[in-house]
Amino acid sequence: MIEKTPEPPYYAVIFTSLKKDDSKAYAEMAEKMEKLAKEQPGYLGFESARQEIGISVSYWEDLESIKNWKENSEHLIAQELGKKEWYEKYSVRIAKVERDYHF
Amino acid sequence: MIEKTPEPPYYAVIFTSLKKDDSKAYAEMAEKMEKLAKEQPGYLGFESARQEIGISVSYWEDLESIKNWKENSEHLIAQELGKKEWYEKYSVRIAKVERDYHF
Repeated sequence: MIEKTPEPPYYAVIFTSLKKDDSKAYAEMAEKMEKLAKEQPGYLGFESARQEIGISVSYWEDLESIKNWKENSEHLIAQELGKKEWYEKYSVRIAKVERDYHF
Repeated sequence: MIEKTPEPPYYAVIFTSLKKDDSKAYAEMAEKMEKLAKEQPGYLGFESARQEIGISVSYWEDLESIKNWKENSEHLIAQELGKKEWYEKYSVRIAKVERDYHF
């Protein structure tokens, strides 16, 4: 789903990952985290696709919202499991959306 | 491929799209544009995945590089064909990467 986001500025967290493994546990955790993210203050949207690599982009009102989500206790557990079990490697980029346009 | 990008700040163009159609012409054009983008001044990297939606993120040194690429003549033709033939809808978000970390 392509998200409708408000007028810029807002923030994007670009998460690109290479997985080790395609476990059911991973799929369940990914779904759980997507639901949990939606409940956080400042959440604006989430877009995701995976082929060779996975790209997930979440949108947030401000840096404070991103920090709070990063430090969410259930999310911290998911992050640890991600490093130990699921991801070969990943990158996280925090970016301020300055302009957008839609077709 | 997960790209190695330099220390922030740099820019990301987040392109999310929903396709109408999975033509060979589209695949050829996408490949051509990816190659052409790599040759542009200020290009830093490109990451892409498609499932229900496609997400492509290209990385650039500055806004000037992004503007020049947007106005590249071959790229303009691709953009027109994209609107006419290939995309149901899309969003483009131009964002300044302020922080990143890698695992």
